[in-house]
Amino acid sequence: MSLIVQKYGGTSVGDPERIRNVAKRVIATHEAGNQVVVCVSAMSGETNGLVELAQQLGGEQPDAREFDVLLSTGEQKTIALLSMAIGQLGFEARSFTGGQMGMHTDSDFGRARISDIDCSTLRETLDDGVIAVIAGFQGVDGAGNITTLGRGGSDTSAVAVACALGADVCEIYTDVDGVYTADPRVVPNARKLHSVSYEEMLEMASLGAKVLQIRSVKFATQYGVPIHVRSSFNDAEGTWVMSEEDVMERLVVSGVTHKLNEAKIRVKGVQDHPGIAGKLFEPLSQAGILIDMIVQNLSSDGTTDMTFTVSRTEYKKALEIANAAASEIGASEVEGNQSIAKISIVGLGMQDHAGVATRMFTTLASEGINIQLISTSEIKISVVIEEKYAELALRSLHAEFIEDGAAEPVADVR
Amino acid sequence: MSLIVQKYGGTSVGDPERIRNVAKRVIATHEAGNQVVVCVSAMSGETNGLVELAQQLGGEQPDAREFDVLLSTGEQKTIALLSMAIGQLGFEARSFTGGQMGMHTDSDFGRARISDIDCSTLRETLDDGVIAVIAGFQGVDGAGNITTLGRGGSDTSAVAVACALGADVCEIYTDVDGVYTADPRVVPNARKLHSVSYEEMLEMASLGAKVLQIRSVKFATQYGVPIHVRSSFNDAEGTWVMSEEDVMERLVVSGVTHKLNEAKIRVKGVQDHPGIAGKLFEPLSQAGILIDMIVQNLSSDGTTDMTFTVSRTEYKKALEIANAAASEIGASEVEGNQSIAKISIVGLGMQDHAGVATRMFTTLASEGINIQLISTSEIKISVVIEEKYAELALRSLHAEFIEDGAAEPVADVR
Repeated sequence: MSLIVQKYGGTSVGDPERIRNVAKRVIATHEAGNQVVVCVSAMSGETNGLVELAQQLGGEQPDAREFDVLLSTGEQKTIALLSMAIGQLGFEARSFTGGQMGMHTDSDFGRARISDIDCSTLRETLDDGVIAVIAGFQGVDGAGNITTLGRGGSDTSAVAVACALGADVCEIYTDVDGVYTADPRVVPNARKLHSVSYEEMLEMASLGAKVLQIRSVKFATQYGVPIHVRSSFNDAEGTWVMSEEDVMERLVVSGVTHKLNEAKIRVKGVQDHPGIAGKLFEPLSQAGILIDMIVQNLSSDGTTDMTFTVSRTEYKKALEIANAAASEIGASEVEGNQSIAKISIVGLGMQDHAGVATRMFTTLASEGINIQLISTSEIKISVVIEEKYAELALRSLHAEFIEDGAAEPVADVR
Repeated sequence: MSLIVQKYGGTSVGDPERIRNVAKRVIATHEAGNQVVVCVSAMSGETNGLVELAQQLGGEQPDAREFDVLLSTGEQKTIALLSMAIGQLGFEARSFTGGQMGMHTDSDFGRARISDIDCSTLRETLDDGVIAVIAGFQGVDGAGNITTLGRGGSDTSAVAVACALGADVCEIYTDVDGVYTADPRVVPNARKLHSVSYEEMLEMASLGAKVLQIRSVKFATQYGVPIHVRSSFNDAEGTWVMSEEDVMERLVVSGVTHKLNEAKIRVKGVQDHPGIAGKLFEPLSQAGILIDMIVQNLSSDGTTDMTFTVSRTEYKKALEIANAAASEIGASEVEGNQSIAKISIVGLGMQDHAGVATRMFTTLASEGINIQLISTSEIKISVVIEEKYAELALRSLHAEFIEDGAAEPVADVR
């Protein structure tokens, strides 16, 4: 007997008929002899409707505590409806709000972090042979206040519960049928991966592949619970996200990702002595601006150039702060650029194949694409290029590294 | 400093603008130096929408526990929105679900009864100078399951909390501006009562005056908390429901009520010996049929006639059961009638004025209305008449007992 946690997103439970379909799928898993915990999101459109209702009050930013009380009703509706649907099909299900299921968080309303999960109620329910239906996205703080984990938090709820229960697998049902080697809307030859390591998934998630919430992958990594990302509209196998040693298909590069909506800021002619970077980045982080890449290069005259990227929505604010900081640290110039894209290749295999970087740069060069910035990690190489070349870059890198025969390791030319 | 519990029904919080208006009214009460607890219903239409959603699942009667989980989201939305609105107007409010505010009930989902209220959280909130916004209609059972008190339960929540807190008054805001001497849609001369005793209100509520939930009046009676029924759309005084000794305006008859949708069943020629009534009514009550009036009359041949009334929706079932029981107890005949109405006059004053009954019967006779059944209590006289005379009866009795000069006591002619 396995213990399976299933998570269904808003589209999968978007109307009563779809909820009935989810009920059937849950029952099939239960009937196959498994213990089942189902974690659900709000019905699609529900959360936006609630946000709109709050906006119609017309005042300022609503109180964060009360906003969570409002939003959490969305998932509560779904758990009730799904439990009813399962009951009507002749099986026993019991619903649990975040508070009822023991999902304890801190008090950071709207983006609470899970502090601990008391699984006793869920275990009792499963031991009684009952299907447990839990509300994703929500919890309670120490004082019993309702909290939410932030948008997309249902993935995190599901994976965290799977970890806490020591589940055999956490199945994430969504409207795509797995993790692809690239965005199929941009790269028609993109193919579904059978399996991918947690580390690769983390890099891909943070680079804009929207299949799984990054926080949920972190939980799974820590506790080693395999995640199976699959479609709620068919029975096809999806993609397994699992430990490196369990991944069978070991590609040099398992994904090519892109991230638009980035902007670049370059601070030039900075005196190169200790503490300068801190003086530049401290005011930015104090203003809550998330910095993505940071690249520094020493120039021949003893000064240095510092370049970093931020989300385009924060570009204006970041540029102002950078200008102020620049004059303080005696930089000669600050320049910004909003029409950039970040392209990355991710793969466990590149740890052993140093030639991968060269092959990436050569491929881009052969398409006439200039590289503005480079940043590397163990299993990822990212470059910043002109935005208009993003799709071309993605397709040519995908052809080079992933399509027919591309999986073969290349010689080390670095 | 007074402690005031205010309850706003679904129409009063029907949209964001109305919620803002309620927020202003709440703040005004708070600003006048009072501690305020606000109890709210679901926005009008919300509960029906949720019921519809459950129906769209298409199966049988949904699980009662899950139905309560679903319905309780309605009030939860309102408490969040109202608390936000109060916050946006610069005052501090905190929302509480049934569970959070300590409303403990039994586990009879859909019609739970309040077992006890732990007021510590509410008291702390009020002592902090914060406005407490609580969800009506809902509670939690001993195991932490969400329960609901049944339709109209928000009145009960508000009054019960007012009692538990020892509030100075429980204000029930609604879309009518008080309790009337008769239904103004039928009796144009009906007038608003300044005050009415708990006992009178109980009789009127159970007779179909839909202003206050009967359970809430029972709570208030027990704890002596005055209820002020008033409109949420203006500032006019409404009607005070209070102890008999506090009611200033002591009318012989304070209200004339009618109840349609009744049906009558008569079991004729029953042998008159002990135990017969039990044999007739036991199967009816076992079938869950609520019996309203019961009248028995001995006839000259030593047999007896037993007549009772039920709700028209239960008439068919009741008639079947009565037929079965009749043959068992050897009754000669069972006859039924669905076109009846029940008309009652209610008033504390009639305790001292025995002539009231005669005056009622004479008034009806002078309009040519035949009386089919009579039943009396301390402060109420009810008659069953042909349904088509209901409005005429109501108007003539209102004119006789309540309009100009009618309040004068009559001589005892009984």
